[in-house]
Amino acid sequence: MTVKKNNVIFIMGVSGCGKTTIGNLLAESLRIPFFDGDDFHSQANVDKMSNGIPLNDEDRYGWLQTLNGLAKEQLEKQSCIIVCSALKQSYRDLLSQGIEKHTKWVHLAGTFDQIEARINNRSDHFMSSALLQSQFDTLEQPTDALTIDISLKPEDIVEKIREEIDMKSEFGLFGLGVMGKSLSRNLANNGFRVSLFNRHVDGLEEDVAVNFKNEHEELASALAFDDIEAFVNSLQRPRKIMLMVNAGKTIDIVIDLLMPHLSEGDIIIDGGNSNYNKTKARFEYLKAKQMHFIGTGVSGGEEGALKGPSIMPSGAKEAYKNVQPYLETIAAKDENKLPCCTYVGPEGSGHFVKMVHNGIEYAEMQLLAEVFSILSATGKDPDEIADILEGWKVTANSYLLEITVDILRKKENKDWLIHKILDKAGNKGTGNWATIATAQLGAPSTMMASALFARYISFYKDDRVEAQQHYGSHNDLSLEVSSEALLNTYQFARIINHHQGFGLIQQASGTYHWNINLSELARIWTGGCIIKSSLMVELVEILKDTDSILKSETIIKQIKALKPDANKVVSECILNELPVPCLSEALNFFNAFTTADSSANIIQAQRDYFGAHTYQRTDDGSGKFYHTNWSE
Amino acid sequence: MTVKKNNVIFIMGVSGCGKTTIGNLLAESLRIPFFDGDDFHSQANVDKMSNGIPLNDEDRYGWLQTLNGLAKEQLEKQSCIIVCSALKQSYRDLLSQGIEKHTKWVHLAGTFDQIEARINNRSDHFMSSALLQSQFDTLEQPTDALTIDISLKPEDIVEKIREEIDMKSEFGLFGLGVMGKSLSRNLANNGFRVSLFNRHVDGLEEDVAVNFKNEHEELASALAFDDIEAFVNSLQRPRKIMLMVNAGKTIDIVIDLLMPHLSEGDIIIDGGNSNYNKTKARFEYLKAKQMHFIGTGVSGGEEGALKGPSIMPSGAKEAYKNVQPYLETIAAKDENKLPCCTYVGPEGSGHFVKMVHNGIEYAEMQLLAEVFSILSATGKDPDEIADILEGWKVTANSYLLEITVDILRKKENKDWLIHKILDKAGNKGTGNWATIATAQLGAPSTMMASALFARYISFYKDDRVEAQQHYGSHNDLSLEVSSEALLNTYQFARIINHHQGFGLIQQASGTYHWNINLSELARIWTGGCIIKSSLMVELVEILKDTDSILKSETIIKQIKALKPDANKVVSECILNELPVPCLSEALNFFNAFTTADSSANIIQAQRDYFGAHTYQRTDDGSGKFYHTNWSE
Repeated sequence: MTVKKNNVIFIMGVSGCGKTTIGNLLAESLRIPFFDGDDFHSQANVDKMSNGIPLNDEDRYGWLQTLNGLAKEQLEKQSCIIVCSALKQSYRDLLSQGIEKHTKWVHLAGTFDQIEARINNRSDHFMSSALLQSQFDTLEQPTDALTIDISLKPEDIVEKIREEIDMKSEFGLFGLGVMGKSLSRNLANNGFRVSLFNRHVDGLEEDVAVNFKNEHEELASALAFDDIEAFVNSLQRPRKIMLMVNAGKTIDIVIDLLMPHLSEGDIIIDGGNSNYNKTKARFEYLKAKQMHFIGTGVSGGEEGALKGPSIMPSGAKEAYKNVQPYLETIAAKDENKLPCCTYVGPEGSGHFVKMVHNGIEYAEMQLLAEVFSILSATGKDPDEIADILEGWKVTANSYLLEITVDILRKKENKDWLIHKILDKAGNKGTGNWATIATAQLGAPSTMMASALFARYISFYKDDRVEAQQHYGSHNDLSLEVSSEALLNTYQFARIINHHQGFGLIQQASGTYHWNINLSELARIWTGGCIIKSSLMVELVEILKDTDSILKSETIIKQIKALKPDANKVVSECILNELPVPCLSEALNFFNAFTTADSSANIIQAQRDYFGAHTYQRTDDGSGKFYHTNWSE
Repeated sequence: MTVKKNNVIFIMGVSGCGKTTIGNLLAESLRIPFFDGDDFHSQANVDKMSNGIPLNDEDRYGWLQTLNGLAKEQLEKQSCIIVCSALKQSYRDLLSQGIEKHTKWVHLAGTFDQIEARINNRSDHFMSSALLQSQFDTLEQPTDALTIDISLKPEDIVEKIREEIDMKSEFGLFGLGVMGKSLSRNLANNGFRVSLFNRHVDGLEEDVAVNFKNEHEELASALAFDDIEAFVNSLQRPRKIMLMVNAGKTIDIVIDLLMPHLSEGDIIIDGGNSNYNKTKARFEYLKAKQMHFIGTGVSGGEEGALKGPSIMPSGAKEAYKNVQPYLETIAAKDENKLPCCTYVGPEGSGHFVKMVHNGIEYAEMQLLAEVFSILSATGKDPDEIADILEGWKVTANSYLLEITVDILRKKENKDWLIHKILDKAGNKGTGNWATIATAQLGAPSTMMASALFARYISFYKDDRVEAQQHYGSHNDLSLEVSSEALLNTYQFARIINHHQGFGLIQQASGTYHWNINLSELARIWTGGCIIKSSLMVELVEILKDTDSILKSETIIKQIKALKPDANKVVSECILNELPVPCLSEALNFFNAFTTADSSANIIQAQRDYFGAHTYQRTDDGSGKFYHTNWSE
């Protein structure tokens, strides 16, 4: 059978207990079909009953088999509700034959007096006390049913049934853009029952959730909404609602829309690229309302979200435990089959590490762009460059390297498509924020800054074209760089980039008391995400021993082997006027970081000269501050 | 005479008009000495009067000359109040002889009945009606006096005198730190009457304003306070109060302390290094209260503040007009004797340009530090380096170059002091904010970022020492760089730094609609400030023709001459593992900025591959966005 989380709910009980009323209400609430068993009798049975002749069990078996068939047929497509008195266990066995795991029983139970009074109140119905008594005599109490007292109000009965028989969704997905859709399908493919919400915008976004559900078989058991209240009510408590909407003010608007319908202990998960400071503020805001906010980075793009992204959640640990089964199940798996999802830390730490992830990504992309321009300057065409990069997969593989090879090989008509792409690079918030965080925290992640600025410079296309006219082309190049030396340079720079990125996280973790496990973070970045690479796999082990990548023995050996080529390649590029800001910055950072005595003493002296900012002395370990009257 | 804004206030009027009472109150309010003219009669006059003989005019002349002498003597030191009936114009001429410009007349005027009633109410005084009438007969109404109706309450009379005779201070200085003190003295030296305020902190800051006033002769006419209300009340309206306190929350606290005592139209000037976004918020806050907030950059350090800083005010233009005479008078003067102070623009634009000024300064300082390390690496000692830099003054002079020469020559015992200074460079908000603004505005001022990060790296002293142990010293250098090539490299980098800095301002001016005049800004940076230089003088003209320095014909010629050496020097440094982040960044920026077709197409393709971010095409000028399924 292909049924996944579909169920048939049989509502049973003696005549007059309210099966039809409750069945209809429940079906409406769950948005699934309702069937009254009585409508499925054979003509022979109908005739017999019209003539006042009671049905015997033989009459009933055919009918019960019909209902069993109906249930099976529905389960192929969706859940459904079937109403049937089903007083004996043998009847119920027949009804659920072959679909036992997908059958839920609800028994509407009342006393003889309750039901008799109810029947007598109905104007269009009559049943003798004797007949009712015979039903009570026949009734075999079910052992595996949800038994509900019919004295409750119908809406409470429906609510109780939904709570108890687990027909509410386990997980809510709010916002069905590219990422929201992929994550929904990923959840459904993993057997989770989800509720889907997308807003209604006349003429622009109409029936998005319903249409999306209908397009994908795996979403058959999903519930689709464009009404927030119904969406929230369709979720089991504590509710888990993942927002996949635009970062920024939208998040606050959505929280305010959800708020009136939420209850204590409910959990909102923000899976967008939100600013970590905002995430902290939202975390505090919901905390004050006894609710939870989990900010989580999700990396992997559309495909990663569908097949397994890398997930970086943060917030209160007890709230994380509630969402852990879902997030870890849908996450990518590392080489040891462990999920690429881990609890990062409190507050906005999840979005912080995602921001740095993207900063590392910016620099990794820029390095490949620089490699491309160097190889182009040596006269190679995109296919030849792709061949070279293909060869690098052996020692320097990464997702970004792989897609760059694909990109370089892509042709349109007879020309390479890359030649047709305008060289103005866009950017979104995260690269920008990573650079700002670096400036604010005093942790110099210079390569991501340099990659960000390279994009900014690219954006001034008209100025660049004009400037080239003024200053002449750099095309008279005599660049000679071997692909092996370039690979070493590239690898050198990548190590520095990762050193800086993890250094920035380490600095933030210390400053904000987040206690982030860098090795574990590297581990969840070995799968699903844009910066997964063989280097990242290496770093999982390295970061177990040190928080500073450049202090690792393994890395020290590698750097010593790679550095001479990096020196040569970068100086050659500079002599040949080829812009290599990110590669240069890798070297300059490394050279500064490994210089015990730097020229910063000049800066301290200057600051003291014009601003009396004072300085410390190399011959006074006490850290005392001195001031000199420099001009005498 | 050395008197500046000192004045003698003569309070005149018939006997019984209240001269002594008002004179005493006024003196107390103005904190200046009070003299009762009657106390200065000669013994002969005293004897005559005791014997009931009225003084004749001859008797009076000697006495009036004595009082004129008293006034002159006081004016040398301070303002004062002298009470004297001075009923005839000839008496008054004698009293003010030679000090006409420093004499203020106050005439307390009442009717005969008013004064008679008043005299009769005094228990210790008696004057016959006839005597009073003779005084009224003698009185020649003064034409140049402030005449005040004695029926007003004494405190209102005092207030009126203060308002009308301009004895209130013109300008208030709040906060007497290094910069506040220097600016106060600068204002006073320029003849402005200032009120000085410094808070009282038991045991730490006691009588700061009074002591400071007493230390400096030029502050004789200044009023000194540690009480906010008295300070505010001592100022002419609209009040002009310049805050020289720590940037940050202190500014808001001080505004809140001042607020209850201020009136509509009053002007607060923030002369600290405040964040431009905060300045905008404060500008709006005061605007809502019908007051003005002028945020102004002040550059020049302690010495500049005293002798003439560069001043960059912003806010409402009509408010600026009120403070313009003060700020422009105390500012440094450019080579055409024009003030290095100009209205920058609205809101926080003054603090924005000061922030960028400091960003440019960061990079200029870092460039000199790199020059120092390059020359050191070629084996030169600080004196030899100072000699070389001394020679650069001919073509590349700047304040920072000058002080660096002084610094390098400074010795302590027999060693150079620079060798004793710990190489951990500090930083305050502005360099950091400039880098953040560059990231936020998309205007790549990469050199100030690089200079900021260089300071950050310097701060990891222990890590650097450890890293050098791991990776070995770079000391086995074979660096060969001529001082001429280095000068060209330095000049090249400085041009790029200024191009970037002014570019960042131009970007902000466009984004925020500030309409900043870049040439005028360069002009006010040619004097008084830390980044004044011969290059800045050149830029005044260049920025009249273009907003983009690299587009200037003059600069294009210079760059073409300088660039080959810059290529060689930087590549040589990189080969020799000498960190030169700021010099490298100058080249990389320039090389990218002058490359018409860059490798940013690779980045756009990657973004489209993993995130469906789309790209534009070189063969479609419409700007339409395309998406490709790259993996087929």
